[in-house]
Formats: sequence, structure tokens, C-alpha cells
Amino acid sequence: MPTPRNALAVILAAGEGTRMKSDRPKVLHEIASRSLLAHALSSAAEAGVGRVAVVVGPGRDDVCAEARRYAPEAEIFVQSERRGTAHAVLAARAAIAKGCDDLLVLFADTPLVEGRTIAALRAALAAGASVAVLGFEASDPFGYGRVLRDAGGRLIAIREEKDASEAERAVTLCNAGLMAIDGGEALALLDRIDNKNAKGEFYLTDVVELARAAGCEMGVVVADESEVQGVNDRMQLAQAEAVVQTRLRRAAMAGGATLIAPETVFLSADTVIGRDVTIEPHVVIGPAVVIGDGAVIHSFSHLEGARIGEGAAVGPFARLRPGAALAQNAKVGNFVEIKNANLAQGAKVNHLTYIGDADIGANANIGAGTITCNYDGFLKSRTRIGENAFIGSNSALVAPVTIGAGAYIGSGSVITKDVAPDALAVARGRQMEKAGWAVSFRAAQAEKKAKGKTS
Amino acid sequence: MPTPRNALAVILAAGEGTRMKSDRPKVLHEIASRSLLAHALSSAAEAGVGRVAVVVGPGRDDVCAEARRYAPEAEIFVQSERRGTAHAVLAARAAIAKGCDDLLVLFADTPLVEGRTIAALRAALAAGASVAVLGFEASDPFGYGRVLRDAGGRLIAIREEKDASEAERAVTLCNAGLMAIDGGEALALLDRIDNKNAKGEFYLTDVVELARAAGCEMGVVVADESEVQGVNDRMQLAQAEAVVQTRLRRAAMAGGATLIAPETVFLSADTVIGRDVTIEPHVVIGPAVVIGDGAVIHSFSHLEGARIGEGAAVGPFARLRPGAALAQNAKVGNFVEIKNANLAQGAKVNHLTYIGDADIGANANIGAGTITCNYDGFLKSRTRIGENAFIGSNSALVAPVTIGAGAYIGSGSVITKDVAPDALAVARGRQMEKAGWAVSFRAAQAEKKAKGKTS
Amino acid sequence: MPTPRNALAVILAAGEGTRMKSDRPKVLHEIASRSLLAHALSSAAEAGVGRVAVVVGPGRDDVCAEARRYAPEAEIFVQSERRGTAHAVLAARAAIAKGCDDLLVLFADTPLVEGRTIAALRAALAAGASVAVLGFEASDPFGYGRVLRDAGGRLIAIREEKDASEAERAVTLCNAGLMAIDGGEALALLDRIDNKNAKGEFYLTDVVELARAAGCEMGVVVADESEVQGVNDRMQLAQAEAVVQTRLRRAAMAGGATLIAPETVFLSADTVIGRDVTIEPHVVIGPAVVIGDGAVIHSFSHLEGARIGEGAAVGPFARLRPGAALAQNAKVGNFVEIKNANLAQGAKVNHLTYIGDADIGANANIGAGTITCNYDGFLKSRTRIGENAFIGSNSALVAPVTIGAGAYIGSGSVITKDVAPDALAVARGRQMEKAGWAVSFRAAQAEKKAKGKTS
Repeated sequence: MPTPRNALAVILAAGEGTRMKSDRPKVLHEIASRSLLAHALSSAAEAGVGRVAVVVGPGRDDVCAEARRYAPEAEIFVQSERRGTAHAVLAARAAIAKGCDDLLVLFADTPLVEGRTIAALRAALAAGASVAVLGFEASDPFGYGRVLRDAGGRLIAIREEKDASEAERAVTLCNAGLMAIDGGEALALLDRIDNKNAKGEFYLTDVVELARAAGCEMGVVVADESEVQGVNDRMQLAQAEAVVQTRLRRAAMAGGATLIAPETVFLSADTVIGRDVTIEPHVVIGPAVVIGDGAVIHSFSHLEGARIGEGAAVGPFARLRPGAALAQNAKVGNFVEIKNANLAQGAKVNHLTYIGDADIGANANIGAGTITCNYDGFLKSRTRIGENAFIGSNSALVAPVTIGAGAYIGSGSVITKDVAPDALAVARGRQMEKAGWAVSFRAAQAEKKAKGKTS
Repeated sequence: MPTPRNALAVILAAGEGTRMKSDRPKVLHEIASRSLLAHALSSAAEAGVGRVAVVVGPGRDDVCAEARRYAPEAEIFVQSERRGTAHAVLAARAAIAKGCDDLLVLFADTPLVEGRTIAALRAALAAGASVAVLGFEASDPFGYGRVLRDAGGRLIAIREEKDASEAERAVTLCNAGLMAIDGGEALALLDRIDNKNAKGEFYLTDVVELARAAGCEMGVVVADESEVQGVNDRMQLAQAEAVVQTRLRRAAMAGGATLIAPETVFLSADTVIGRDVTIEPHVVIGPAVVIGDGAVIHSFSHLEGARIGEGAAVGPFARLRPGAALAQNAKVGNFVEIKNANLAQGAKVNHLTYIGDADIGANANIGAGTITCNYDGFLKSRTRIGENAFIGSNSALVAPVTIGAGAYIGSGSVITKDVAPDALAVARGRQMEKAGWAVSFRAAQAEKKAKGKTS
Repeated sequence: MPTPRNALAVILAAGEGTRMKSDRPKVLHEIASRSLLAHALSSAAEAGVGRVAVVVGPGRDDVCAEARRYAPEAEIFVQSERRGTAHAVLAARAAIAKGCDDLLVLFADTPLVEGRTIAALRAALAAGASVAVLGFEASDPFGYGRVLRDAGGRLIAIREEKDASEAERAVTLCNAGLMAIDGGEALALLDRIDNKNAKGEFYLTDVVELARAAGCEMGVVVADESEVQGVNDRMQLAQAEAVVQTRLRRAAMAGGATLIAPETVFLSADTVIGRDVTIEPHVVIGPAVVIGDGAVIHSFSHLEGARIGEGAAVGPFARLRPGAALAQNAKVGNFVEIKNANLAQGAKVNHLTYIGDADIGANANIGAGTITCNYDGFLKSRTRIGENAFIGSNSALVAPVTIGAGAYIGSGSVITKDVAPDALAVARGRQMEKAGWAVSFRAAQAEKKAKGKTS
């Protein structure tokens, strides 16, 4: 059994992205709640790439931070001048010089390339190629470099539009830019690229003709056009988002989830969805959400950083924020916000409630309009509610506070002190009535209104 | 005038649906809030079919229950072994043997077939055919049985892909599976089908060649491909949902409703929508909703089991649950939930309110943040609010309780006792003030925070 | 430099629109929150048209009012009989007789025609044509008048379907109806149109042959088919809405806004969106909304008449109503409604709150469940909250009331009197507890429930 080949990916992430019209660097824009850069890092990881070098523009601490967040071991290099793609790759010379079997060149602004496609480029090297390029059949090849092959299907060259003959322009297989180079030959090839061209830049694609001249074997991997779509402006960002969302929705459905109207459900790249989950129309799922088997997410729900237990029900009109954890068969209803709180099995928070920084016991019932007062302007405090407790509607629970198991809070109470298990606590005013008051009030107000008096 | 022909539909509903990856039987999955089985039953009813026999898999009490729910008179038969479609039809032998003019064979997992298409199959029988099959022009016929006709356009046979000659494979008219058979001949034909084929199954399509050999007249009805789409996995379920939603939206618009963005509005198969109704983008309507003329459903509204009177306004961000009944010109605003409650003419519930188990009188005004406390953990009780009453904001009404006509509830009250008509009721604490308190509080909390103390 | 040409647009707005099945006249139905009529007026204004004459049906005060609302100087004419398009244009004879360089004939029910297209018709006149018509390449020309040109590309005639030869029917360039006529010749040409045809109507298109016979030069401007789509029923209204929404979304993205899922975001014709704004999926923006640079509109937000400052955050589940003004970095969170209220810089209203008729000072923090009680059934009053104030959760502020800067309101208070700066105000009941109460309550209620007693 052969030793598996190791790989280094150089990810070019220095593009300025001026067409984005943004203060944010292009590669930090997001698709499915994940930055373009992180998508490239994730695809590389899926293809078994063990080392990554990220080439960033000068002064881009934010890009470096994002790279390290997703790939703590990433080596980061700054491309201080913009002198072409080969020049950018060689910014990572120190990483390449450490040696590898497969050198991959990836682009952070081409974030839809899937791990299996990168793996196919690696497979081409494993099969003997020194250089393997990624091509795609272009619906409109104008402007792209053409991938030229000989009669035997072997890669000859990548020909830019402006240098192509009429016959070459008729070729529709185009160059996506991504490339795999044999690690042992990479540096020698890259160093031979010159900048004797109109723009005076060092072009990575020149590797192909250099390698061919050197008699190297070369491969082509063909990807679908949608996979190699670049992101250069907000329209392309939205199109890329749509491609990724379609993939995520299909995967969820293939796993046994019902998405009644998949086109209205937005998932994140890391969303985990169980079997027999139902997601109704109009649901948005941000990062770090796990949904257990048989759970139902009703329409108009918004989830981030939440864990939904088996058979739990969420929404409609529910917002789960980071740290929301619903155990089996827990229920969160409409106009309810849950943040950094645990709902034990069978707990119910059905209407118009804010639960923040709290632990709700099993089968507790939180009445409509309940508010956990977890913040005093400076500090956050925790509310603890025991199992089977019943919180009457429109109550305020001023944290830190503990409601004992089985306790009962009268509607409209403001609870500032702990309540013993099985006790009733009430904290509200006494009802008083003035007979006939409304008749004179209406008369007075109607008169004021008629005079146009408003405060 | 001839006697109208009577009909029996045998609906095959025993499929296991393993590709759904679900604990639920396939035919109980839903489209437009209605199970696949119920769609088939409904289409049969639309085509004037008076008797239905449903063939279910063994032990499927849930499927039987659903059949009886939509068609209480349905005869139910269990197909205990899976030996082909003809065998499945003959599971209903007892029903067929009772006799009928038209025998229809329908499939619960082909739920998009419309009543008029079934009626067209019946019309073919009425016109003299002994057997009529449903065909469709396939965009990709590979894998389907081809509908073969002679030069005169008469049906000859249904030829399976594997048995087809090259010329036959070029035929694009394919067999959808549904069939109508003259009731007088059906049992004799079905009983002559044998299982002398590779799989050892009894194929319903063999009826065609048997009938032709017997010199019977035969018909073909052609449906659109989208109408005969089967549902075998969650992707196909979503596609079928989309087809039905498009039909429902078009019907609503044709009836004089404005759907600003129809692709974002989800209706149920039984939704009733009046003239000059406006439905804004992003609305979800579940089962049993009736919307009167001139009503407006604003964005982000979710309705189930609700009746909306003429000129009433709902949402945005409104949830109407079963038993919500809004009379003419009633208004339900944002972040409001209404359940099992009647709003009389002109009543207004505009903001952040839960109304459950209640009767609200004409022109009553329910302030923001009002909660009807209808549940004590065990029992539900009713709130009654008289006409022209004014409920101050943030009030809790602890049911059972009655607020008299014209009464006025002070803001923030917890009302536990009935309030007389035209009275003012207030139930809240008295306001106290500590001058300068916040200055020292801020200093203390800032210090705690700096020390990192949190409870 | 030549004197710029002045223009008069005659906008035909008298159509009955019976296929809309509506009590509202067709031209008052809306696209992107703007009536069809206003779209036509707006396009005319974009093309530099200085005078407009609107031709309405008899008794249509609502149409007149809408015309005057968008174009106060519009001259309005009533077409009392329906005798053809030329007859309709001549209803505005008095306006035409005042003279103009360019006479444009526009149709209120063809609202997608862009200003630049009208400008192109005007340019054709400026280049010497006496008559210029608007054509489009029809995907299915059946039923349209064909735009016939001679070998040199010069306009010959507009030939109705029924009068066309086979060769003419093969022409796919069709007549959109809009037309520009040299102002000096217009009245003479229009007056020569007769009604000697099957329907006895005066057809505007006859101008073309009259002008040609008179030896006039004539032009054709070609528009995209989607631009000349008419609105005659609710389906076409929805299609036109979709075209406009696509335009608005593209413009927002081109300006540097991220629309994660543009197909789920609904804008109004007058929406203003800054650079580096992010709009999440499922957002509805009504008329008169301005969003500053760097603001974020989270999912499920609904905005009308609101100004959002730079870097402000809105939603998810926020509703901003007319008069909501958020200063820089203000924050409005979930299940919050803001109406006619100013939030100063850094103010936060995060959860389940109604703020109406209020001024919130800089960095004030409004706790969850706060309600401004701004309405007593007759009059609206104002709430004023000073900077850095902290409103405890579940409070009701009964307007008119002022909370001083830095003041602190205890949770669950009902504030009816002004609060001094830096003071603490509390207005709520005292907490009382009955030990073990819940045990006997549960026993009693469980017994009642078992007996089926409900109130």
C-alpha cells in the first residue's frame, strides 16, 4: 500500500475586490454564514489537504484573523505588490520550499469549488501528472483562457483570449484558474515564469507551457461551470449564495428532512439536520445549529447557535439565539426569544416571552408575556426555574432568582426574591374599581380631541 | 338523457416509500397541508367518483384513519404481499365485485392528477372504450413504459423500456400508470393477468394487451408531465408542493386577489380567498382558512383555522390559530396571537398581545402587551370583553373574567375580578421614587463588573 | 447649442380593467408600493417630460387624486366615451393645443417602460422623425400589431394581426403602443384619423400611415419585451411586480449592498439603500425608507416610512412604522414595533417592545416587554426618555411622561408620573408567598379537570 501523498494548498486571498464596493475585503464576505476564505479552507480540508498557506494583501489583519480562526495552523504570507498570480503564489515560497507531494493553488474568491474537485486534481498528480488544471465547459467562453488539448486529449496549453487563433477561440473548455503541481517540481517551474508580456505580470498559467516544454505529463479535471463561478461583485455573491443554498437544501432533503418550500429556507454551511425533521416555509438558520430527529421548525423562525432536541417544536415566529438548548419535546412558540438558556425535556415557552441566561426545568410551563430580567445595564444574571413550575402570564423574573420545582407564580407578578418549591408567589397590585368613570372620561377626552388639544 | 355512469376508484396506497427516509408512510406526507392520499381522494371526488376503495399496506392504521377522515365511506383493503400492481388492485376484489360502470385505478403517490383528468378517463369509457390509459409526453422517456398506438391513433400496448424495440423507444408518449376500465369487464380482464415475467409480478398494464386481444376498444388520455409526477423522495415532495402552490396561487389571483409576490405565499388546498383581498409577501396559510372580500393579510402572517371577515386587516407578524374569527373590519396587528377567540366588528388588537379563549366586543380596543391568562396549568377559561371596552397596555386578564361594555382598564393592571360596564379598573402598584439612586447604583455595578463579578 | 426640446406626455389612464376583478381602478393597483399611474408619471419625469396630461374615465376622482399627488401640475381630462386610443388622446386636445416640441403618448397600464426608453423616443424626434413608435421583439407575436419596415429599415406601417399578410405575420417586431409625435404636427395628424373600421373606433396607430403618406420621416425604438408588458389581470400584476423588484434589487447590489437572498427581499420604488448595507433574507420594505451606510436589516423585518442611521441594526422580527428614525448605531431587536419615534445614537430597544410617539435619548436601554402607553382611546401623547436611562423589563410608560437622563425604572413598573434624572422609580406590587399552595391547587384543579368542569 503506497504512502498517501501529503498536500499544501496556497490560497490566494489578496484580491482587493473593488467591484464589491465595500470597506470589507472581498474574501471576508459571506456565503451561508461562512466567509469566502473559510469556504476555500473548508474545501481544501475536505480534499485531505494537511497544510495551508494563505496569501493576503498588506495590512489585512482581519483576513489573517479569519484564516487562523478556521485553520489555526495556517501559514500566512503577505503579497506586498500586485504582480500577477504566479508572483502571488511565490509570496508563499517559504511554505512551498518546505516541500510537499501535491501543491494546490486555490482562490479564495472562487468559493464554490467542492472538496471532491480538489481531490480530483490531486488524483491527477497521483496518477503521474506534474501539472493538473481545472477546466469547465463555458456557456460563453469569451474572455476566458482556453484549455487546449492535443488529438490524444493531453493538455497542451492555456491560451488567453487575446492570443488565441480563431480555431482556438472556438474551444469552449476554459481555464478555471485552480491548479495542482507536483510538489517536487513546483518551485523550479514557478521560478521559471517570467513577466515578458503586455502587462508585465507573472502569470501562473505559464506553468502549463513550461511544464509541457520540459516533457512533463499533464492533466485536466473538468468541473461544472457553476462550481468555478468567481465572486467579484454583490450580484455574483448572491448567485454563489444561491448555489450553496441549493446544495445544502438538497443534502437536508436527501437525509430525510421535509423542506416544504426549500427555496425559502436558508441554511448555514455547518447546519446539522436530522431525519424526519420538518422545516416549514420561511426559515433562516444561522451558524452552529443542530436539529434533532423529528423536530419541527415552523415558519418564520430564526435560529443561531442553537441545539434542538428530538421531537422539539420551534415557532412560528421564534428566535433562538446562541446558547439556546432545547431538550427532547421542548416547545418554543410564537414571538419568543431564547438566548443562552436550557429548556429541559417537555418545557414549554409558548408566547411572547424573553428567556435569557436561564435554566428551565422539565415540563415547566412559562406563561405568555414572561420576561427574565437578566441585565441591569451592567451585569447579566441567571434565572433558574424548577421542573413542573408554572409561571403565570405577564410575569417579570428579576435575576438572579430561583423558582423552586412545582412553584406557581401568579400572573402579572414581578418576582425579585427566590420562591420555594411548590409555593405560590404573587407580586402585584390590588384591583380597585371606579364605577362609571369611563363615561365621564370619554366625554372629557372627546371634548379635548374636538378642540384639537394633544399633549 | 342517458343515466349517468357510476364509478369506483381503487386507490393504491400501500407503497413503503423507503426513499422518503421517514417513519411516516409515504402517502401521509403532505402537500399544501393535505396528505398525498387525501389529494388522490379529493381528485376522485372532483371527477364524480362515488365509491372509493383504498388499498393499504399491512398494519397501517394511520393510513386507514386518514382515508376514513377524508372519505368516511371508503372501503379499505390490505395488500399483505407485494406482488405487483394488478395484484394490489385485486386486493379490492370485493369492492370491484359489487359492480360499477367505471373502474378507476389511481395511485396515492401520484397526487397531482387533477379531477378533470380523471373525468377525461371516464369520458373515454363513456365514449365506448373498455380500457383508457393516461399518457404523458415525457421530456426524457428513458425508463418509462411507452404508449404504443397504431397508424389510426388507437392504443395497441404499453411497452416497458426493456422490451421495447429501437423504434418503440423513440416514442415519447409514456404511461402514467392511471387507468380506467369498464366496470363490467374489469374483473374478467384483471383475473387473466399472469405473472409470467422476470420479476414474477402481476402487472396492471397487461390489461391493455389482454383487452386488445379481446377486440375491445381502447382510449388514451394525455396529461401534462408535471401532473403525473410521482412522489418518491423529499425532493419530489418539494417539487410536487411547488406545482400545487402554483395552482392555488393562480386560482386566487384569477378570483381577484392580489398576491404581490405569489412565490412567497403558501396556501392550503382548502384555502378560500375573496375578491380584492391583498396578500403581501411572505405569508403562510395553513388548513381551514377563509378570507373575506377586501381583507388585507400583511407580510409575515401565519394563519390556520381562521375566518377573516370582509375588510379585516391582519399583520404584519400576526398569528391566527384555529378558532380565530375576525368579523368585518376587525384588526389584528403585529406580534399578536389569536386562538379560539371571536373579534367582533371593528375590534382592534394591534400589538404584542395574546388573546386565547376570548370574545372581544365590537370596537373594543385591546392595548399593547395585553395577555389573556386562559390557562392555569390544568384548565382553560374564557375572557369576555364588552363592546367599546378599552384595555390599557400591558394588562393581564385572568380568566374566567368579564370586562363590561365601555369599561376601561388602567395600563399594567392584573384583572382577576369582573369589571362593570363603563367602570374604570386599576390593579397595579403605586409609583415610588428614590432620588439620585441610579448614580450610586451605576458606581457599584461598574465596580462589580470591573472585578468580573457576575452572579 | 440647440434649445432643449420640451415635451408633453398624454397618459391614458381610463381603462376599466375588468379582468382585474377589482373595485379599484386598474391604474391604482400598485407595483413596488407605487400605483401603475405613478410609475408612468415617474418614467415620464425621468425622461425630462415637463408637462403631463392624464386622461381618466368618468367619475374617477380617485385616479385624479393619485395623478395630482405625484404630479401636482398634471392637467386632467375625462374621456367620457370609449371610442379608441386616438379618441382618448384627443380628450387632452386642450393640452396638446398649447403646443410642445415632443408629444408622447403613454399608457398607465404599461408601467414597466423606463425613462430612458421614453427618452429614446424623444431622441428619435430630435433626430428628425415626425413619428416614432416603440417596438419589441415578441416571443409570440400572435395578436400584436406588426411593425413593418422597408428594405432600408424605415417604418412603413403598423399592421394589425387580422389585416396582415402571411409574410407580414412572420414579422416578430411588434407594436408596444407607446408613441412620440412631433408636437407641431401632432394635432393635424390626430385629427385626420377616422373610424372607418370594423369596430368603428379611432386608432392611434393610424398616425403611422397618415404620416408616411404625408412624407414624414419616421422612427422605431426597440425595447425588451419585458419592458412593454401590460397589466390586465392579477397574474400580470404579479409578473410586473417581479420585473420591478429585480430591477430594484440589482440597483441596490450594484450600489454596494449585500442582499443575501435578493429574491426574498421586497423593496419599494423609492427605497434608498447605502453602501455596505446588509439585508438578510425575508425582508419587506414599504414606501419612504432610507437605510444608511453599514446598517444591517436582519431577517423578517418590515419597514415603512423609516430612516435607519449608519451602522444601525434592525431585527430580526422588527417592525418600523412611519416616523421611526434610528440614529447612528441605534439598535432595534426582535418583536419590537417602533412608530413615530426617534432613537438617538446608540439607543437600544432589543425585545418585545412597543415604542410609539416617543423620543429615546442616546444610549438609553429599553428593557424587554416595555410598552409606551401612547393612546387613551382618544388622544395620542408623547413619551420622552433621557440619554443613558435604563427602563427595566415589562414596564409600562403612561404618556405623557418624561423619564430623566440616567434614570432607572424598576422592572414591571407602571410609570404614570415624570421621573427625575438619575432617580430610581418603581411602581409595582410587593411579593408575597404562600408555602405549599401549589400542591393543593394542583390537586383541586386535577380533580376539576377529571370531572370535565371548565368555565
